[in-house]
Amino acid sequence: MATIPYKIYLSEDEMPEYWYNIKADMKELPAPMTHPGTLKPCTVEDLQPVFCDDLIAQELNNTDKYIEIPEQIRNFYKMYRPSPLTRAYCLEKMLDTPAEIYYKFEGTNTSGSHKLNSAAAQVYYAKKQGLTSLTTETGAGQWGTALSMACAYYNIDLTVYMVKISSEQKPYRKAVIETYGGKVIPSPSNTTEIGRKILAENPGTGGSLGCAISEAIETAVKTANCRYVLGSVLDHVLLHQSIIGEETKAACEKYGINPDVIIGCVGGGSNFGGLISPFMGDKINGKNNIRFIGVEPASCPSLTRGKYAFDFGDTGQITPLMKMYTLGSGFMPSPNHAGGLRYHGMSSIVSKLYHDGYLEARSVEQTKVFDAANLFARSEGILPAPESAHALKVAIDEAIKCKETGEKKTILFGLSGTGYFDMAAYMSYNDGTMTDYIPTDDDLEKGFATLPKVEI
Amino acid sequence: MATIPYKIYLSEDEMPEYWYNIKADMKELPAPMTHPGTLKPCTVEDLQPVFCDDLIAQELNNTDKYIEIPEQIRNFYKMYRPSPLTRAYCLEKMLDTPAEIYYKFEGTNTSGSHKLNSAAAQVYYAKKQGLTSLTTETGAGQWGTALSMACAYYNIDLTVYMVKISSEQKPYRKAVIETYGGKVIPSPSNTTEIGRKILAENPGTGGSLGCAISEAIETAVKTANCRYVLGSVLDHVLLHQSIIGEETKAACEKYGINPDVIIGCVGGGSNFGGLISPFMGDKINGKNNIRFIGVEPASCPSLTRGKYAFDFGDTGQITPLMKMYTLGSGFMPSPNHAGGLRYHGMSSIVSKLYHDGYLEARSVEQTKVFDAANLFARSEGILPAPESAHALKVAIDEAIKCKETGEKKTILFGLSGTGYFDMAAYMSYNDGTMTDYIPTDDDLEKGFATLPKVEI
Repeated sequence: MATIPYKIYLSEDEMPEYWYNIKADMKELPAPMTHPGTLKPCTVEDLQPVFCDDLIAQELNNTDKYIEIPEQIRNFYKMYRPSPLTRAYCLEKMLDTPAEIYYKFEGTNTSGSHKLNSAAAQVYYAKKQGLTSLTTETGAGQWGTALSMACAYYNIDLTVYMVKISSEQKPYRKAVIETYGGKVIPSPSNTTEIGRKILAENPGTGGSLGCAISEAIETAVKTANCRYVLGSVLDHVLLHQSIIGEETKAACEKYGINPDVIIGCVGGGSNFGGLISPFMGDKINGKNNIRFIGVEPASCPSLTRGKYAFDFGDTGQITPLMKMYTLGSGFMPSPNHAGGLRYHGMSSIVSKLYHDGYLEARSVEQTKVFDAANLFARSEGILPAPESAHALKVAIDEAIKCKETGEKKTILFGLSGTGYFDMAAYMSYNDGTMTDYIPTDDDLEKGFATLPKVEI
Repeated sequence: MATIPYKIYLSEDEMPEYWYNIKADMKELPAPMTHPGTLKPCTVEDLQPVFCDDLIAQELNNTDKYIEIPEQIRNFYKMYRPSPLTRAYCLEKMLDTPAEIYYKFEGTNTSGSHKLNSAAAQVYYAKKQGLTSLTTETGAGQWGTALSMACAYYNIDLTVYMVKISSEQKPYRKAVIETYGGKVIPSPSNTTEIGRKILAENPGTGGSLGCAISEAIETAVKTANCRYVLGSVLDHVLLHQSIIGEETKAACEKYGINPDVIIGCVGGGSNFGGLISPFMGDKINGKNNIRFIGVEPASCPSLTRGKYAFDFGDTGQITPLMKMYTLGSGFMPSPNHAGGLRYHGMSSIVSKLYHDGYLEARSVEQTKVFDAANLFARSEGILPAPESAHALKVAIDEAIKCKETGEKKTILFGLSGTGYFDMAAYMSYNDGTMTDYIPTDDDLEKGFATLPKVEI
């Protein structure tokens, strides 16, 4: 076996030509997306006013294990993929651990994260359908940026509802979206009915992903030749993100790397779901015994403290119901800097796998996450996104455990993006003003009280 | 010959193990760095109070064509190199040009530019010499960031004098440097004699690279176990940057790519000099007939409107004299967004090659540069640094000429970095408030009046 380089780059020829659909391998499927009126599984017709046709077909596809990536999307991917699988030699040395640490780095493109993998696909299908505009929400801003890049490339108009606190913390992220031609509206806004309602009830709110989603859907439905696109949570987004895991698996196989544990941050679940899915498929089929750990912020702990229940995907309660780990669509997380992890719910697929014991979850506090980010930046050079640093924090914890026990484990984590537009957060860490926040049980109860009272 | 992929990545094994010293191939050497008191060439002893010993040896080395890259530096390089040589398929398509366009992309590391190539080397030699701290200047902030990354890695203290206008335009760039432990002082400052003098004479100044250099040198000389390091202009910096050109040449040879023209932006000359030097060595030896074009801002036109003369490297006139194209060390460029190109002088090597007719120079206006940057971002995805977009602008001009003439030329340019910390500039472009500035002949005369009256 060849020496493992610092960075493993697959060639473009080795880039996967199919996405992997983990639902085809799951022993039990997640409960289907459900219509909140009829309480029956959503049909294609239910979803067509909101979503692109091809994406609906992918969303509802539970049987095809592999779905071909159209050549045009593969060509888009080639502008920034395959992404490197990096051996963290310098971090290992700094930690003085016997563990081998690897990270799949999705931050080598201008959007700064893995989000471009799904944006490139979704906008392609929108263009193919002849749509002229799209709406979406963005939290940290990575999804909005990724989508604006894809929309510029395919020449489609875009309106982005950006969580207000993020748009204030990251004016330059907003500027990037605008450079690519996207229109940014801080959410909640007075451009939609639901936005005006939320503002009236809670005038000082910094917003949330759930509330930005409501506004984006409302606008899409009311605009001709327009649809809504979502950057995480949904099955088709995890499908597109499976390219992360497929590339990682191919690189591991090429170099004889056998991960003992795979770690990712979880907000809506697309990065983590995409990274783990091909490995998880093998685990389900008895071919490996990898531990999978999803890491979420202590301030928004949907897996570790949420309920497994049918819930709306948005604060305005206009989406279909999904069975997922959730804090309730009315849960309004305290401002924290990992804007991409401020979501009340969790991908149905990730939720089901967690519920069935296939993966673990941990919650971590913000200041500890930034300790890890700082250590990583100084050893490996890369300044991580606060979201990604959640995974990093637990990877370092695991590596330190190995040092204590002497075990030579192989730890692999997803470095989903860079923190170049998160400097306000780093500044508050640097000057010691960053604080932690953990919701009380009372805070959680208020969120749970907004769960729909349904029996399905 | 294999199909050319979107991105050509050399393997780590193919990464150069030697820097290339173009001076060993030049028919005539640049005039030596000269002591402003004795008007004789600087000796090792003259330079030792300011510079690291190994770097002085490299600076004065005119004979060794190849200088080995120490293994530790090569390992540092492996964290982010080899960098990709990218075929701009999408840009070609958008321009509808018969030309083939390639760019060597140095922005894949957190410093966001090629500067890390020399920072990794310089801090290694400082550590080897047992120094405990370094000082430097930074304009756009890329050099300061790169140096702070290398200093964090090698555990050496760092003080960065940052051109005041840049530190105001780019608070987050400052924050990145601080995240890596560097201390940032906006220049001119009251921490040095020369800074206080400049402030007294010109209280509202936005600063310049020349003035930040003065302050950094003064502090280095007055501090025990400390030296000054420079991110461009000097021969040893161009030496380190030759890795850009060597990798580019290796990738070209591997895929049978024969550039007709190579284009780079020029501020102090390190990126352009590094990119072209191995190709230029071949041109000097009659092995190719490539056109080389250095692109500078119309607001700071040292090659296209400067004088070829001995001049100080800094505003305070405390450095050795270098023979170079210069606007005079007292030239204070109007604020423009390409902070890395706001330097009154130019690398002696690049100046000499230009003077001897081996390369061309062009100056371009800021708004035109951002038109090109915007076009590039929308087609190739990457948001370029304003500095790098100068090269891009001329590459696009050349490609459009090919469209008009039907010539299928091969155009290669250096994309030296990303613009993620230049969003204030992009915002002023997006909202139409960006302006151009071209110094009048009177403005230039004021700068030339500060040239030293020496005959050497």
